Amino acid sequence: MKAKITIKDIAKELGVSSSTVSRALKNSPEISEETRKKVKAFADLYHYRPNMLAQKLRNNKTMVIGVIIPEIVHHFFSRVISGVEKIANGRDYNVMICLSNESYEKEKLNIQMMANGSVDGLLVSIAKETLEKGDFDHFKELKDYSIPLVLFDRISDKIDCDKVIVDDIGGGYKATKHLLDVGCKKIAILSTPDHVNVGALRTIGYKKALEESNIKVNNDLIFKVNDKSNITDQITTFMHNTTIEYDGIVAVNEIYAANVIKIAKEKDLQIPKDLCVVGFTDGLISSFSTPSLSTIDQHGITIGEHAAELLLDRIQNKEVYREYQRKVVSTDLIIRKSSEKNTDL
Amino acid sequence: MKAKITIKDIAKELGVSSSTVSRALKNSPEISEETRKKVKAFADLYHYRPNMLAQKLRNNKTMVIGVIIPEIVHHFFSRVISGVEKIANGRDYNVMICLSNESYEKEKLNIQMMANGSVDGLLVSIAKETLEKGDFDHFKELKDYSIPLVLFDRISDKIDCDKVIVDDIGGGYKATKHLLDVGCKKIAILSTPDHVNVGALRTIGYKKALEESNIKVNNDLIFKVNDKSNITDQITTFMHNTTIEYDGIVAVNEIYAANVIKIAKEKDLQIPKDLCVVGFTDGLISSFSTPSLSTIDQHGITIGEHAAELLLDRIQNKEVYREYQRKVVSTDLIIRKSSEKNTDL
Repeated sequence: MKAKITIKDIAKELGVSSSTVSRALKNSPEISEETRKKVKAFADLYHYRPNMLAQKLRNNKTMVIGVIIPEIVHHFFSRVISGVEKIANGRDYNVMICLSNESYEKEKLNIQMMANGSVDGLLVSIAKETLEKGDFDHFKELKDYSIPLVLFDRISDKIDCDKVIVDDIGGGYKATKHLLDVGCKKIAILSTPDHVNVGALRTIGYKKALEESNIKVNNDLIFKVNDKSNITDQITTFMHNTTIEYDGIVAVNEIYAANVIKIAKEKDLQIPKDLCVVGFTDGLISSFSTPSLSTIDQHGITIGEHAAELLLDRIQNKEVYREYQRKVVSTDLIIRKSSEKNTDL
Repeated sequence: MKAKITIKDIAKELGVSSSTVSRALKNSPEISEETRKKVKAFADLYHYRPNMLAQKLRNNKTMVIGVIIPEIVHHFFSRVISGVEKIANGRDYNVMICLSNESYEKEKLNIQMMANGSVDGLLVSIAKETLEKGDFDHFKELKDYSIPLVLFDRISDKIDCDKVIVDDIGGGYKATKHLLDVGCKKIAILSTPDHVNVGALRTIGYKKALEESNIKVNNDLIFKVNDKSNITDQITTFMHNTTIEYDGIVAVNEIYAANVIKIAKEKDLQIPKDLCVVGFTDGLISSFSTPSLSTIDQHGITIGEHAAELLLDRIQNKEVYREYQRKVVSTDLIIRKSSEKNTDL
């Protein structure tokens, strides 16, 4: 590899001071045109580049926002990133993404790395392991670095910052209400363990819809899928359990819902005749699965846009000691074949 | 926001020199224990953090590798990133990702941003617009920054660097050969415009398989999907064209293949009876679609692992003036329902 040429090297070569070179490169009128031309020609010849790292250090701005997401194979998070990119690019900011892979240690490392001079602010959706552990000190430390933080989707009340969330209770309610409306009587929910706020909140919405229809909540129909074990195996065990009867399933994400459709086929259950299904996240799997999957659209792009706006407002107006905001983005039900039970009625 | 406390601030407050503070924080024995304790207590109290940006500047290492991919909603790229993370983390490196969104300008901006002090090396899969434009100067400039580059999947022969590619000719060949083996006579290919190397190479493999079986290549059966327009509309037009007969389709990515299955159903074509389909990329859509999709597995994780290994070898052994390497990762055919035509024979 070729060593980088510095201002000092140019100065030495041309027999002038470093400050002359620096001013010549900035086209300062204090320097004679002849010297300016000579310096620039030399700099071009040896591919001199101003040391941006040193420049960043001086003006203390990176013009980059960092995003830390739990995983990349997830339609919702990729939509969020599209929204973030749209707002950030429109405000001349660039976006860098790191993955926590749902790991507490990795999330902590990512935050430290990004906060140490790579970004002006951070957007984070918390890793499942961190939520389970309940240790959020790595987020609190961001304040000492003066790095603004906005949490989205997976948040914690123990962290003081701007937050953008999906109306998860409303989403769980809408999904369940829809299944009741098409005639389902025994509706199950495939959720996450309780420490993951999104699953817990969707389950609250599910219970609310049932109670409004005077249906008693049956805890046997609330199944919490543990992402640390094989998802398909767990859902298969639940669906093949002969002591449990169900004619509708709310699945809190697209992968769970796709598994339900697959396992139902193996069980010779006809969808939607024998079993109606509603998932979450309007991704490619939902529209390409057979039957196509009814789903709760969480408007990932809108979430990303709101989160980036809140963050850039804090970055660009550091004086504003505005109270932390909490934006709630509502969801929409998209009805497809997997729940079109009563269309012939 | 609270201003960051600096070594200077601590020095002023305690009435000692900055150098004393700096050495005390590094636990230097040259400084009395009392002063060391006092400095550390003060630094803790005011949440002093060493300025990592300045430290990076001094030792010129970020311990981060950057990855620039064209898009995030793409199973192949997310697999590549898993492979990159695995190798990088194992060698104490962190990974930052930026998206080019298939845009030349965005790719250029990302490269400049990452090369300017955020990363020690770059892994890039080239944006379609850049390939079309044929302008690769932004890659060539990396040499002036002494930032090693490894290209993967979407590459160009005009850029001198290490490269990791999929055996795309072999993949196109295997997909086509398989369709011939199950009895297809008129095989179409849904490819990309020619400037995208992966589509062009898979088409070469397709032609090779046909020619080996003494089937004349029919250019009407080679359809190049333009990603700038609506994909579904283009594939629908092709598949509904009554002047073209086909009983097998090779689709060069998962989304094209999923569209073929969807449109075939609308046309009342039975898969695999009337039409056999093989896609590329063994993603979630392939296994969850009905019928499940036969596919060419491109081993994204392996590609990511090889690319990260080549890059880290260059970063960590800057002295090695080894010739640039070109690794070719072979593909595997995964047979599922969409091409199980002759299983009853």
